[in-house]
Parts: sequence; C-alpha cells; structure tokens
Amino acid sequence: MDEQLTEAGGKTRLYVTGDLGENRTLALDEGPSHYLLHVLRAKPGNRVLLFNGRDGEWLAEIAQAAKRGVTATCLNRTRPQSVGPDIWLAFAPIKKTPADYLVQKATELGVSALLPVFTRRTIVTRVNLERMAANAAEAAEQSERLTVPEIREATDLGKLLASWPNERRLHFCDEGGDARPLAEVARGASGPTAILTGPEGGFDPAERELLRAQPFVVPVTLGPRILRADTAALAALSVWQSTAGDWR
Amino acid sequence: MDEQLTEAGGKTRLYVTGDLGENRTLALDEGPSHYLLHVLRAKPGNRVLLFNGRDGEWLAEIAQAAKRGVTATCLNRTRPQSVGPDIWLAFAPIKKTPADYLVQKATELGVSALLPVFTRRTIVTRVNLERMAANAAEAAEQSERLTVPEIREATDLGKLLASWPNERRLHFCDEGGDARPLAEVARGASGPTAILTGPEGGFDPAERELLRAQPFVVPVTLGPRILRADTAALAALSVWQSTAGDWR
Repeated sequence: MDEQLTEAGGKTRLYVTGDLGENRTLALDEGPSHYLLHVLRAKPGNRVLLFNGRDGEWLAEIAQAAKRGVTATCLNRTRPQSVGPDIWLAFAPIKKTPADYLVQKATELGVSALLPVFTRRTIVTRVNLERMAANAAEAAEQSERLTVPEIREATDLGKLLASWPNERRLHFCDEGGDARPLAEVARGASGPTAILTGPEGGFDPAERELLRAQPFVVPVTLGPRILRADTAALAALSVWQSTAGDWR
Repeated sequence: MDEQLTEAGGKTRLYVTGDLGENRTLALDEGPSHYLLHVLRAKPGNRVLLFNGRDGEWLAEIAQAAKRGVTATCLNRTRPQSVGPDIWLAFAPIKKTPADYLVQKATELGVSALLPVFTRRTIVTRVNLERMAANAAEAAEQSERLTVPEIREATDLGKLLASWPNERRLHFCDEGGDARPLAEVARGASGPTAILTGPEGGFDPAERELLRAQPFVVPVTLGPRILRADTAALAALSVWQSTAGDWR
C-alpha cells in the first residue's frame, strides 16, 4: 500500500499548517483531510507530499484515514524550504469567478501576498477571504510552490496608502498619462515590491492624484490596449517576475 | 436621439465585417445586430463606434434597427487603422471555460493570430472555432483594438511544424531542460514571432525532440513554478509584448 498518490497534474501535494520534520506525525487540516478521504479515497500506507511554507516539502505516509481525521507521518524531506520573490498584489476586488481565477493565477505566477483594496469605482462590496485562501492553497499545491501567498484583510485605498511600508515600491497600473512601461521600471529593480491594479472602470481622478503624491508609488503602463482588471494583474506579475523576479 | 450608446466599459464599439468609409451605409452582421437590438435596444439615430480591422474606427449612426436587420451610416473616422505586433499564439486546446478565457485575454494582450494545435497529451478533441471567433471579437471591442485576431483551423503539431514559415521564430514554452528565460530571448527581438504552449501534461519527449530539431524553434522558460496551460500562454504573451512588442 505504500504507493505515492497521484492526480492528473502529477504527484499529490498538499498544503498543511502543522509542523513537518523527520518521523513527525501530524493531523492534517480539514481541507486536505476531506480531499484525501473523499476525492482520492486514500488509505493508510499511501504516500503524499506535504508542505507548510516553513519546513520544505516532505514525503509522508498516511497513518490514519478515518472520518474523525487523517494523520500522516513524515518520512524524508524531498525539497528544502525556499522563499520566492517578495511581490505583493494589491487589487480592487472583482466578481466571484474572475476573482477565483485571479487568485489562482497570481499564485502560480509567484505572488507573495494578496491585498484586496476597495476603490471608488469598485462594484463588488464583499470579499470572501476564506475562498481566496482555499484558491491560493490549491494553486500552490499544483504549481509546486513551497509557500502559499498571504491573504490580507480587505481595506480601502486611503488606509492602504496611509499604512504602506515606505521601503516597498508600489507599482500602480495607470491607464493614462505619463506612466513608464512596467518592463522598463522592473529592469534593474530589486527588493520588496508591489503591483496595484484597479477595478474595471479604473481609478478615479482623485485616487490617481492621491497615488501619485505618495513617495513610494511608481505609475506604470501595460501597453496601448484596455485590459480587464484580472488581465492587468496577471500581465503585470508576469512582466515583473520575468524581469526582476525569479524567472531569470 | 443622436446619442452615443455606452456600456459599463465605455462607448459601444462593435466589430463588423463590412467596409467602412465616409457616408457609407452598411448592414451590420448578425452578432452586432442582435446585440444592438436585444441588449442595448438601439434606435435609429443612436451612435456607435465601428471597426473592421481595415478601415480604422468610425463613428456611425444607426439608420435602421429592425428584426430584419440593422444598418448604420458612417459619419466620421475617429481613429486611423493601426496594426499591432505580429505575434501568433499556438496552443493546445483546453476545456471550454479556460479556453474562452484564454482567447479573451490573449486578444486583450494583443495577439495577432490564434492557432489551436493538437498534441499527444491534449485531452480536448474538438475546437469550436466559431466560439473562439466570437470571444476574440468581443475582447477586441472591449480592449479598444482596431483588429480582431485571426483564428486558424486546428491542426496537429507535426503538420503545424511541417508548414511553418521559416522566418517566424516559434518560442516553445518548455518545462524542463536548457531553455532560456523568455524575457532574455525577447530582448532585442524583432519581426514576426510566435509562442507555443502545451496541454496540462506538457509535451511528450518525442514532441520536445521534434520541436528542438526545427531551425525556427527557440525553447524558452517561464520560471520555476508549474503554470497551467492558460496561465503559461498569457504570461508568455505579456512578457513578449512588454519586452519586444508594443508596450514599450
């Protein structure tokens, strides 16, 4: 029974919150437990890969697989812990389906934190942080990340800027004006960074003025076409990662 | 009644196939006619923007709005015709919802042609070209493009390569091996280009070998994480456009 569980995408990898280490046995969280029991129909002896964002990736053997819980014992470490680029995505919340997509794709592209930000033209009024966290964990599992992006509480633009850490450049995707191409700005950049994308209707003039008045804000452009909110976020992350991130 | 029709995203822009020119009256195609009649409830005298990929963008006034057809008369040209970068996306077909998304996003990002390519690990067996064309036209309308990407007949990888135009570099997104970062390859590149992305399971070893044997193929990498098929396509287009395309 000591078979490695696999799925369409490859070996089964699961994000857990408990500590991982040689011979450690841990109780898996509710999400992965449910998935193992009811989707993969896992049995004791089956093997899976586990990661928690701190202790690297471990090959683990399922010890107990029952309705009251699933436990697994770590056998050996398959990858040491690594930390990806420190890049945050602050974005105006969008409707459910594009939001799921945005969180999944941003995670694949290596974002380190997701910050929902309400702006004046944002239509969506609520953000489901649990759903965001579940989407991020699943995308981290499938993309072979060793970390899951942090999901921040939603806030509004004014508060975000007022509490912004000065040393982190905020690249604000602006649809008009004197913004520089993002790839040009990214070239030679290093250190903590962030991307900010607006809602479908863009930022309003007062918001644009407020943003440009911040010493840490860099207005950037993503070309001559109008991009949807989610497209802009994913394009910006791709460009940054390819130029200043870990795709080099 | 001479009001400009608007939607959430801004002024109503429609892709048409007929010729546009001063004082020309044209019968709109079925798609835009239906949209104007039944969604926007347009009346004679209402104004819309029209483009056909050849004659620039025109402000036009609806002359007739009836079930048997909608006609419009061109008033004045609002933008001269422009042609975006010559960048093709060849991609292994994926399921319906991600495929819709892929076509829409690729259009926003400025792709000039979409080429569905069957590979050994492609699971999807049919491609709906009409649906692709409709998604591309809609995204072109919303992104303020003046062209709609060409949709090519689906083919298989062998045939695609056998008839490939030698002067067009084909950047093959490879998950392993000695591939160079796409941004590095794109720097300083010019002329006709193409991106090739595989299905969820990637290309098989024989396909990778075949690809690498072609003089026009350049293997490229999109970083250390595993990207879904649609994410890889959009990331590659973003990186290319930002570095060698029209985002500069």
